[in-house]
Amino acid sequence: MAPSSPRPSGRAPGEMREVVLEPDCAKHAEGSCLARFGETYVLCTATIEDSVPRFVKGSGRGWVTAEYGMLPRSTHRRTDREAARGRQTGRTLEIQRLIGRSLRAATDAAAMGERQVRIDCDVLQADGGTRTAAITGGFVALHRAFSGLVELGVLPEVPLLPGHVAAVSCGLYGGAAVIDLDYAEDSAAQADANFVMTGDGAIVEIQATAEQAPFAAEAFGEMFALAQTGIADLVARQKAALGTG
Amino acid sequence: MAPSSPRPSGRAPGEMREVVLEPDCAKHAEGSCLARFGETYVLCTATIEDSVPRFVKGSGRGWVTAEYGMLPRSTHRRTDREAARGRQTGRTLEIQRLIGRSLRAATDAAAMGERQVRIDCDVLQADGGTRTAAITGGFVALHRAFSGLVELGVLPEVPLLPGHVAAVSCGLYGGAAVIDLDYAEDSAAQADANFVMTGDGAIVEIQATAEQAPFAAEAFGEMFALAQTGIADLVARQKAALGTG
Amino acid sequence: MAPSSPRPSGRAPGEMREVVLEPDCAKHAEGSCLARFGETYVLCTATIEDSVPRFVKGSGRGWVTAEYGMLPRSTHRRTDREAARGRQTGRTLEIQRLIGRSLRAATDAAAMGERQVRIDCDVLQADGGTRTAAITGGFVALHRAFSGLVELGVLPEVPLLPGHVAAVSCGLYGGAAVIDLDYAEDSAAQADANFVMTGDGAIVEIQATAEQAPFAAEAFGEMFALAQTGIADLVARQKAALGTG
Amino acid sequence: MAPSSPRPSGRAPGEMREVVLEPDCAKHAEGSCLARFGETYVLCTATIEDSVPRFVKGSGRGWVTAEYGMLPRSTHRRTDREAARGRQTGRTLEIQRLIGRSLRAATDAAAMGERQVRIDCDVLQADGGTRTAAITGGFVALHRAFSGLVELGVLPEVPLLPGHVAAVSCGLYGGAAVIDLDYAEDSAAQADANFVMTGDGAIVEIQATAEQAPFAAEAFGEMFALAQTGIADLVARQKAALGTG
Amino acid sequence: MAPSSPRPSGRAPGEMREVVLEPDCAKHAEGSCLARFGETYVLCTATIEDSVPRFVKGSGRGWVTAEYGMLPRSTHRRTDREAARGRQTGRTLEIQRLIGRSLRAATDAAAMGERQVRIDCDVLQADGGTRTAAITGGFVALHRAFSGLVELGVLPEVPLLPGHVAAVSCGLYGGAAVIDLDYAEDSAAQADANFVMTGDGAIVEIQATAEQAPFAAEAFGEMFALAQTGIADLVARQKAALGTG
Amino acid sequence: MAPSSPRPSGRAPGEMREVVLEPDCAKHAEGSCLARFGETYVLCTATIEDSVPRFVKGSGRGWVTAEYGMLPRSTHRRTDREAARGRQTGRTLEIQRLIGRSLRAATDAAAMGERQVRIDCDVLQADGGTRTAAITGGFVALHRAFSGLVELGVLPEVPLLPGHVAAVSCGLYGGAAVIDLDYAEDSAAQADANFVMTGDGAIVEIQATAEQAPFAAEAFGEMFALAQTGIADLVARQKAALGTG
Repeated sequence: MAPSSPRPSGRAPGEMREVVLEPDCAKHAEGSCLARFGETYVLCTATIEDSVPRFVKGSGRGWVTAEYGMLPRSTHRRTDREAARGRQTGRTLEIQRLIGRSLRAATDAAAMGERQVRIDCDVLQADGGTRTAAITGGFVALHRAFSGLVELGVLPEVPLLPGHVAAVSCGLYGGAAVIDLDYAEDSAAQADANFVMTGDGAIVEIQATAEQAPFAAEAFGEMFALAQTGIADLVARQKAALGTG
Repeated sequence: MAPSSPRPSGRAPGEMREVVLEPDCAKHAEGSCLARFGETYVLCTATIEDSVPRFVKGSGRGWVTAEYGMLPRSTHRRTDREAARGRQTGRTLEIQRLIGRSLRAATDAAAMGERQVRIDCDVLQADGGTRTAAITGGFVALHRAFSGLVELGVLPEVPLLPGHVAAVSCGLYGGAAVIDLDYAEDSAAQADANFVMTGDGAIVEIQATAEQAPFAAEAFGEMFALAQTGIADLVARQKAALGTG
Repeated sequence: MAPSSPRPSGRAPGEMREVVLEPDCAKHAEGSCLARFGETYVLCTATIEDSVPRFVKGSGRGWVTAEYGMLPRSTHRRTDREAARGRQTGRTLEIQRLIGRSLRAATDAAAMGERQVRIDCDVLQADGGTRTAAITGGFVALHRAFSGLVELGVLPEVPLLPGHVAAVSCGLYGGAAVIDLDYAEDSAAQADANFVMTGDGAIVEIQATAEQAPFAAEAFGEMFALAQTGIADLVARQKAALGTG
Repeated sequence: MAPSSPRPSGRAPGEMREVVLEPDCAKHAEGSCLARFGETYVLCTATIEDSVPRFVKGSGRGWVTAEYGMLPRSTHRRTDREAARGRQTGRTLEIQRLIGRSLRAATDAAAMGERQVRIDCDVLQADGGTRTAAITGGFVALHRAFSGLVELGVLPEVPLLPGHVAAVSCGLYGGAAVIDLDYAEDSAAQADANFVMTGDGAIVEIQATAEQAPFAAEAFGEMFALAQTGIADLVARQKAALGTG
Repeated sequence: MAPSSPRPSGRAPGEMREVVLEPDCAKHAEGSCLARFGETYVLCTATIEDSVPRFVKGSGRGWVTAEYGMLPRSTHRRTDREAARGRQTGRTLEIQRLIGRSLRAATDAAAMGERQVRIDCDVLQADGGTRTAAITGGFVALHRAFSGLVELGVLPEVPLLPGHVAAVSCGLYGGAAVIDLDYAEDSAAQADANFVMTGDGAIVEIQATAEQAPFAAEAFGEMFALAQTGIADLVARQKAALGTG
Repeated sequence: MAPSSPRPSGRAPGEMREVVLEPDCAKHAEGSCLARFGETYVLCTATIEDSVPRFVKGSGRGWVTAEYGMLPRSTHRRTDREAARGRQTGRTLEIQRLIGRSLRAATDAAAMGERQVRIDCDVLQADGGTRTAAITGGFVALHRAFSGLVELGVLPEVPLLPGHVAAVSCGLYGGAAVIDLDYAEDSAAQADANFVMTGDGAIVEIQATAEQAPFAAEAFGEMFALAQTGIADLVARQKAALGTG
């Protein structure tokens, strides 16, 4: 965190970009949220379905799953349309599996009943941190969909962790731990880590990767500390947007 | 056009929905336009590429192509993600072929030079008329991308028809010809027609389909007349948005 | 229609190629027709199936669908085999959707009962106009299949429009409207239009496309007039072949 | 060959169906042959291509390859269209590999020069024995294509085995060896064998399969003897059709 | 079999490589066998499944099927992973169809009951003859799986041919018939033949292919004679491994 | 780590299963290693290729990539063959991306020269921890392949981290942190974490996932401590196997 390695964005190491969570932005979906982290925009929608995957059928338990996509020109250079290529990339599958696991960990599967909620996270514009924006906004969309079921009297209460779940990226940039990397930082970072946690600091998922040389345990600790603060801030924004605070 | 068959929207037969064309809405694309026809939102981006398809290579001529997609929950009921299904539907391919043909007909392939422009049209929210919104907005995105090349001195002028190209749907609803159908009208129409034309009434493409019984030539004529007026209005909006009026 | 722009084939503008419709040409199919338009040969078969698509199941209504294919060397230069490529092209899907829509518009879905008829249209040799030959011959194959059900006492009468449905292409060639383009004309035409109509002139589907510059409404009108005459002639041939005249 | 097990067709054990080989039946192909074995019709076309597969490039040698397909309603019950399913079945791949190997074994790869000939064999109507009809007709189509190159002065002579190559099926039906099985026999046979040989009895390929219990070496010998006679007859017909006799 | 054409391996024409059949090598499978023919290793497992293919459902009969694969670096040069390519090659499908047919011919479908056994044959290391090793080892795996059902009292006895089924390759190398070709011989052979037979010499399947010029019936006879001896030897090894001798 | 929650295997919390690394086990590969962690067997091979991916071409730098697969019956219940399904699952892609990233982080891309090494990791038998066994064995296979280049004089020394890279899984089982989970533990764990590190404790990759409820940072710390010890042990075994200690 030396003054000699300022971030391209001019932000302090622990300073996040402007975050805006806009619930109910989609006309047709049961729940939705447009998550904006700086210049990254991810549209998250929640669809409630009666049918569940075969492996939970008859269990009385529900299932939350996620799909992720990027608009072809959400990126600096155009990315090939996966529908035209005929298959989703490994990166896409990896990210949507992460989103799904994270939101399932936030959900009380027995309390939600034998139904499925499908979270679609589509990146309208990318500037780093799309997967963490997707999880943070996806939680809001899921909460709105469950709230609708509560309003209809289908569920007694929202079957989600009261502590909420959000996600943020951290990295090592210029030798220092920084939070919420934008594309310019992300593409030059020495390490990249994504933290999915609850508002009270419990871990849902951690993925940390050396981008160049292996890095020391201390650096990991610094990123973890930044993430804890950042997640608490994101959860506060979720609560404000949802009126659950 | 009998008073006994009012449109669900309350609009007059020849009355379009509110149309908004917002150019330069995408941070990364060479050209872009968010086309809004009522509650239908289509994000159109233009990407300039150096490489051209094999069949024009070495000809000194350029190529314009288009891709079309819908966000899974842009629709009333969720539509399966084509990337996950592993193939684009026939409807998608048919629409993107239409968009591509329409914009190529608007372009001077020799004047644009041996490069390709790829137009991505992604439906963020659907309420009928997505393909006509895509063509109308795609023309604006293409114009903005070409204008960028003019500003850079790469092209002497924008290699597009000065009369501009726009598209609108018409239909037979309750026995009368109406323009710019929304989803409620579209799903109950007796016929459905899409017109792609220039501002001065020349035909680029017409697709008219009986949804139930075959319909008379007179009804086709009435739809055609509505379309001519509507296209002129859309071209005026394109010119206003582009400052080309 | 100036004498200065004669057609490559030497035909008059409104003169069709020799058309032959040969019903019952396929040993195994419930209905069939070999449709020959000049050097274009399309083999159309109708298969009756008990199961219907999910969206009509339980409705008491039937469904007509179509598939289209070209033998690899039906064309001047060999076309890649779609089965080997692993996907049907957009052109193929677009054509088979058109055939299916056209024949459904000709069918009384309630009267045919909850069954499906699948029309396969396979191009044995191509010389322009394969989709219009497929619709014209597909109607005959469908009629023969329904007639078989009538003979078996399953249906009281053939659930098809008594006016019959046929299709023909028109185009602008050398500035004049001409009918039933062969490959040489088709590849040099200024506009290309396909008309699907009943024998009494009602419209099932119109698709008109500028191949180069946009074209005037008058030219469209001339093509439409030629099509009306041509369709009437084709329907007469269908009736002769079917013995329904 | 007991009188107590007559063939459904009433043919003698060694009696083939009517065989007709019609060369030059396809307008566009460099070589073609419609091969008819009774009610089985296979259209074989030969396409000459300049580019060769990577593994022979620069060798000065050519390559012959084959593709096989069935029209969906060539069969008693409709077969799914492979292009729509998105992949060729194992049976199709197995058959087209057999056709390709057989015709390559008949060709002088060095003498044909560094070009590829692609043989398309499409079954218009199936009644057993489609792969043997394809090989027998494919040889004729290949010969016609090479003859065209000889006529153009590109090749000094046809680079094919002077003994010609043909194929026939044999089987065990009702305990006796029989030749050229139709569908009714084929589906009830105890063993099925396909023989690809030259007119003078040299072996190109043999595939023999027990359909129920394993069978004795003697039965194989009887089938082999029938095949030798049948192949000689087919080669005579090839020579008559080609004028090479 | 002239002394002037010794085999690369130094083996006599009728001499097989060292063959080892190791049953019960896989911890999880109901039956298994590692089949080793010299440096060729094929792992064969048998999985018993309750559900059967649609075409035998309700018949009271069972079904045996097979799948085949090669590890990417089982071969001299790396072979592309089929899972990554997205489709199995024609060679793979052809081989697994052969394995399946061979083992079905060895099975009493009625006696095995309405269940399916799936034989997976995966090549860990390839040095020629992988398909014959797969059939020989697959029979052992299948026998072990059935034996397990006998031990559980589900079946009264193993529903397989008491004569056992095994497979071996023969070829023409240096003009002479030889048995059990390794890769060095296989890639230079004039003909290649695979024989699947019972221990008492009945034929299950024969596939013989000319690799260069067509070959004489006498050469086929010599290969067949070698195969008979080799199969008898392999069946003896199967019986020793299974304790069924 | 309470005595009241013993592991199913009876191992102490920090006790790994028997680990065996067998280099040079594959006849054809440039480098190989059979990695055995208890009943988990993963065959790792390294293939050296001259061509590199497009994005490093001309950079003078090399690339290491990995592919992962499971034999269908390596698992308790049979897993569908990915080659037959036509696509790799998200889990497979996620794992092979992890292996590739981990081994690239261990490699000096500039020192290895512009070539590619492809690591194939195929699970012969699975009992938990296949991805960590794959990384640990993959490093050995990669080292052997590079050593071969050193022996040939192509490279001056092995371009890998002298500290070596290995991987191990940890988890929370019965409330306590444990190392190297087998399948029985893995399927009942409260959290699952995979650590990829160097012998001297630097981090290459960490992936930690809550399997049920979110877990505390302390528990993560306990798993991390176990991993450090385990990795040191694995690296010692790598050095013993490679003779690099």
